[in-house]
Amino acid sequence: MPDRLSRNPSAAPAPAQRADARHNRARLLQAARDAYALDGTDVPSSAIARRAGVGAATLYRHFPTRDSLIAAAFSEQFAQCVATVDEALAADDPWHGLRTALTKLCRMQAEDRGFSAAFLAEFPDAPDVRPERARAAAGVARLVQRAKDTGQLREDFDTSDITLLLLANNGVLQDSPAASMAASRRLLAYFFQSCRPTDGAPLPEPAPLRIENLYRTPRRTE
Amino acid sequence: MPDRLSRNPSAAPAPAQRADARHNRARLLQAARDAYALDGTDVPSSAIARRAGVGAATLYRHFPTRDSLIAAAFSEQFAQCVATVDEALAADDPWHGLRTALTKLCRMQAEDRGFSAAFLAEFPDAPDVRPERARAAAGVARLVQRAKDTGQLREDFDTSDITLLLLANNGVLQDSPAASMAASRRLLAYFFQSCRPTDGAPLPEPAPLRIENLYRTPRRTE
Repeated sequence: MPDRLSRNPSAAPAPAQRADARHNRARLLQAARDAYALDGTDVPSSAIARRAGVGAATLYRHFPTRDSLIAAAFSEQFAQCVATVDEALAADDPWHGLRTALTKLCRMQAEDRGFSAAFLAEFPDAPDVRPERARAAAGVARLVQRAKDTGQLREDFDTSDITLLLLANNGVLQDSPAASMAASRRLLAYFFQSCRPTDGAPLPEPAPLRIENLYRTPRRTE
Repeated sequence: MPDRLSRNPSAAPAPAQRADARHNRARLLQAARDAYALDGTDVPSSAIARRAGVGAATLYRHFPTRDSLIAAAFSEQFAQCVATVDEALAADDPWHGLRTALTKLCRMQAEDRGFSAAFLAEFPDAPDVRPERARAAAGVARLVQRAKDTGQLREDFDTSDITLLLLANNGVLQDSPAASMAASRRLLAYFFQSCRPTDGAPLPEPAPLRIENLYRTPRRTE
């Protein structure tokens, strides 16, 4: 923050400067969300700074790493994912709980391709995202186990099949949220029908996409 | 071709020059396949020229548009897709034919992420790809109808659900072909089980991803 210090070396920033900083931060987050929704999270940070009408230095002051910008841009949605899993765990009917949670998560992906990309990406430089993710992943594993315990979910279902679903759902997203939603709903209907206990053929092994593989390091374009 | 013409203004290219051109073309195609497999078909052509060790002018002489380069790089695989559908149409058991065709197409996607991206992309500047695609799409529609006619496929299955599957399959591909194959196999097993005639819930409408939507214009990064 050399420019701020040089103007006012000993005191905290003046209120006008703080308001300015808040304003820039909000503009950057909005620009990031807009850019990610259009082009995925591979968009270079420089393009986001341009879109927000701020300099690169301002961007890096607020968000020193790309991961920290992505994590901040989608912090509300990440919190919503955790809440969705918690609600599902509180449902009386485990299969209904699991179904509702997956439906909500897939809808969140369909509503915003940028979020969907962020949701599936790994953020090695944004450690604050990790505990939330670990909590959500543990909750999903419990949801799966509960639905198996009540005989509502096929025995050979693996928690990693949730990963498979979320990646597949990301794959069917279209240019408009409405088209994405229709594709996602249909994919989910197929998936749910094949999740039920069955006398049919067992699923092929080796199954699992390990849950860690859900999070893929996004391609760096800078 | 100004450089070639200036050396030999009136005659056809000398054999050594033709061999050189063939060699460059082969290097470009290999470089394109390698780059697409790693980074998808969004890779700028300039990067492919660099990888092939040829100049940009040489690249544009062989492949005046990006689409023509992608189409040429995967021409064998495109032909294989058409052959796969034709074989399936010749199968005695329509459901077995459809299953086998989808299994092969999904495996081709899993073996090569670059091909998978090309397979799902639209090529407005490569008209030579279009008749093959139209033929394959018509064949797939016939496969679906035959399996319905014999009661082996659910009545509310829509041809566009093949699009859904191929997009979903592209979404679950991983960094290594082996991991992609495992994920793809599992996804397909779920899909096949839910394709069979059922007394369960009907699929949600509006269903269809129209088949035209399968082909999406790849993002231009140049």
